Amino acid sequence: MFVLGIDPGLSCCGYGAVRRAGGGLQAISGGVVRTDTALELPDRLELLHRELRGLVAELSPDAVAVERVLFQTNARTAMAVGQAAGVALLAAAEAGCPVAQYSANEVKMAVVGFGGATKEQVQRMVRAVLGLAEPPRPPDVADALALAICHLGAGALRRRLAAVVGDRDVRPPLAPARVAQGRR
Amino acid sequence: MFVLGIDPGLSCCGYGAVRRAGGGLQAISGGVVRTDTALELPDRLELLHRELRGLVAELSPDAVAVERVLFQTNARTAMAVGQAAGVALLAAAEAGCPVAQYSANEVKMAVVGFGGATKEQVQRMVRAVLGLAEPPRPPDVADALALAICHLGAGALRRRLAAVVGDRDVRPPLAPARVAQGRR
Repeated sequence: MFVLGIDPGLSCCGYGAVRRAGGGLQAISGGVVRTDTALELPDRLELLHRELRGLVAELSPDAVAVERVLFQTNARTAMAVGQAAGVALLAAAEAGCPVAQYSANEVKMAVVGFGGATKEQVQRMVRAVLGLAEPPRPPDVADALALAICHLGAGALRRRLAAVVGDRDVRPPLAPARVAQGRR
Repeated sequence: MFVLGIDPGLSCCGYGAVRRAGGGLQAISGGVVRTDTALELPDRLELLHRELRGLVAELSPDAVAVERVLFQTNARTAMAVGQAAGVALLAAAEAGCPVAQYSANEVKMAVVGFGGATKEQVQRMVRAVLGLAEPPRPPDVADALALAICHLGAGALRRRLAAVVGDRDVRPPLAPARVAQGRR
């Protein structure tokens, strides 16, 4: 099972591909698609669409997980992010790829264990779960990887991790050292 | 000058093509693209994208005018409409077609003369300006035609219409009979 997570954004759209390998999860690739803010909106959407379509074709994931955009305080940003999400959903559908959407809270719940987790806690848990030497940067990549982990059923994974490092250590609030230690 | 107006929507997306012909404006085509609410969002976006891309390729307009989606009370609807607008912008950009966005208020201002115009007033004015026997239906088509008229510079048109039927008659509130008379 190989899942491509997409953290939608117009200026910076994160992506991260995660494979279930043996008893764990493995990060296959991750990065961001940026579109120049000097470009017009239609051209930015076209660029993003082209890049994401290429990415889906190249990676050929079994599923794509896209963050469900809810309304934020900044209406202008929310709409741009929503349109970027729409383009991501479109790229997946064009490739005939199953798509799932998760809200940020659902991802946090699945990856960290509670919906109110901070961005840093998500990054640390992504790093721990995937056994990465460094937290993925920019944070958009970590968010995309978290989406993929969420789709792959992070609940089961957290239980497995808890069996190794002790339940206390994979429950929020997460100290980064502990989690890193948990991966050794 | 030939403009395709698109009134974005996921369930019902209106389109209307208007050409400047001689001293007036002529409706070339209009209709709606509907996507089944039983389909998943990615599939609906793909269907809409395919239809709009086909429409732009078929009509080959000089420009595409898309309504700029602002936030409404129903957040869920606004996001779906925004994503439909994003797909419309994308389809235009893919065809290398210049795109303009206008808010509903800008369209009303351009077509009826004031931003607070009702949907009915827009419909009547669209009918009058384009010399149509009946108001375009569903209303999404009238809104799309209004977007095209707005892009074609309805201000100049309204002045021309005023010269024929009298300024009083093209100012809101518009009685439909009067406007129809103005087109004879």
